[in-house]
Amino acid sequence: MSSAPRIVVLAGGVGGSKFVVGVREAARRRWPDAAGGTRAEITVVVNTGDDLWLSGLRLQPDVDSMIYALAGVNDTARGWGRTGESERVAAELHAWGAGWPWFTLGDLDLGAHITRTGWLRDGATVTEVVDRLASRWPLGVRLLPMTDAEVDTHVTAAQGRMHFQEWWTRHRAAIPVQGFDWPGIERSVPAAGVLDALVAADVILLAPSNPVVSIGPVLTVPGIADAVRTASGSVVGVSPIIAGAPVRGMADACLAAVGISATADAVGRHYGPRVTGGLLDAWLIGEEDASLAADLGTDGLRAPVRALWMRDLDTSARLAADAFDVALGSE
Amino acid sequence: MSSAPRIVVLAGGVGGSKFVVGVREAARRRWPDAAGGTRAEITVVVNTGDDLWLSGLRLQPDVDSMIYALAGVNDTARGWGRTGESERVAAELHAWGAGWPWFTLGDLDLGAHITRTGWLRDGATVTEVVDRLASRWPLGVRLLPMTDAEVDTHVTAAQGRMHFQEWWTRHRAAIPVQGFDWPGIERSVPAAGVLDALVAADVILLAPSNPVVSIGPVLTVPGIADAVRTASGSVVGVSPIIAGAPVRGMADACLAAVGISATADAVGRHYGPRVTGGLLDAWLIGEEDASLAADLGTDGLRAPVRALWMRDLDTSARLAADAFDVALGSE
Repeated sequence: MSSAPRIVVLAGGVGGSKFVVGVREAARRRWPDAAGGTRAEITVVVNTGDDLWLSGLRLQPDVDSMIYALAGVNDTARGWGRTGESERVAAELHAWGAGWPWFTLGDLDLGAHITRTGWLRDGATVTEVVDRLASRWPLGVRLLPMTDAEVDTHVTAAQGRMHFQEWWTRHRAAIPVQGFDWPGIERSVPAAGVLDALVAADVILLAPSNPVVSIGPVLTVPGIADAVRTASGSVVGVSPIIAGAPVRGMADACLAAVGISATADAVGRHYGPRVTGGLLDAWLIGEEDASLAADLGTDGLRAPVRALWMRDLDTSARLAADAFDVALGSE
Repeated sequence: MSSAPRIVVLAGGVGGSKFVVGVREAARRRWPDAAGGTRAEITVVVNTGDDLWLSGLRLQPDVDSMIYALAGVNDTARGWGRTGESERVAAELHAWGAGWPWFTLGDLDLGAHITRTGWLRDGATVTEVVDRLASRWPLGVRLLPMTDAEVDTHVTAAQGRMHFQEWWTRHRAAIPVQGFDWPGIERSVPAAGVLDALVAADVILLAPSNPVVSIGPVLTVPGIADAVRTASGSVVGVSPIIAGAPVRGMADACLAAVGISATADAVGRHYGPRVTGGLLDAWLIGEEDASLAADLGTDGLRAPVRALWMRDLDTSARLAADAFDVALGSE
């Protein structure tokens, strides 16, 4: 391909944002423009399944993680949120007895939450809100929520149903759950631009995000999985599991709840190869999992072995470049 | 009266809260209980006409001013808001392009706004929200909003209609207005407890708050003015105008808009004596306005001359004690 490609990434929060930053960097290196950016068009479809209402505010953790990482204002030491964060308002909320004591609301982060809540109250769609939030910094990618609908993830545990964030953050995913659901998602539609971007894409990438609660909701919005299955572009996924453990986060707990082993091949088979009705043309697995490649290939899923660890911008960009190569047949 | 009285104060924000703090102190001195409080029952009916939605948050400036002053956490140097306030979140809102750049949202203050918004979203009434907010500190009075309904004050100016706060805070009340209205107030009802408190009151006090936009909305909620008119207790008002100028704030601009002179006698006549269908048994005017007392008396409104300036806790308490004396006939 001589012209710069159209790239769509389906992604969740912190892990996804690290990958997207790598995608942007790899695209800048391979298809540079005169302004230090890239001629490639990068669209990121962000999970909104972990959105929540908390003390009257609408939170979108994955959207914010993506924006903060692309803007370079994310706290890389802590691994989430804004750098230089403080919690003066949170201390007040605690004193008033509001909010969730186990859910951190940083002062800088609250700026985004309040802004978003105000715009929503004024009638803006989620797509418009994300677009306006994303315009604060020159991110170099187009951010789209997966849908404008509120489809917050819920979990069913022995002690009852709860919001995903309660299970994830309060209980650290440590209590067994029977499954996840997104009330109303069957009636939701993809946000404006999502299907168009998938149809026009030369490359579709599934970020190494949590397959169940990050990529899962995106693919559950009616129409998105079908658009990936029938896309004319190449679809390449990156395993979020290396050597039987999640790269970050607690994806293993989520996978266990839905009966999928926390292994690179099980997650690859979960997405499945397009040749048998699945989503993927190729599934990048780690060097630690090289022994799984042959079996996956036998089942119709090409599984190139690559270095998956994203330790810094350069390793993230090289992983993204590897995904480009596989997708564009330029390996 | 040998037993401690039931006292109801109708009040607005900063000026009203200064007076209410004086009422509490005077009651403690005159009808002390064993715990350092008072045996008198003090109910404050607070104006909610200057409430507003701002960037998705519900603000109640007068409620907050009252709570902060009674809790002793108000910024007495600045004259409003919390002491030790900061504006970290506000800087973020500005960067996102949210909120009103001319309307300060302090970090500590935002704690109350977010808490209130969350409780309202969870289905609490305004009365319940005020009660819960008021329970953070031992205030020594019962706070009631005038109504649970949203009846935000609007002003009509030459350049169109706007929210009261836009006129008051952004334009510093400096552009001429034709009047004030509270959309929907004709269908509102007093908050639970307000009419009961007025019926049971031995003393009803009109705080020296803005007659038009602080006391005005309270008296416009259907049923409240009638309850004051027909109350068995004594009704005593305190003039917010001394020597032709407001004690604080910009009450003169509001009075001008509704065609009332900014003088102690004009405001007293605006409320009117109960003997001719008005609200007041007595109207405390300042020593600077002593010459007005005779004329007011001729018109049926007793106008005792007192020291009205509230410079500190002691002068506020002495003013409140004067109002008690007038109301209880113990002058």
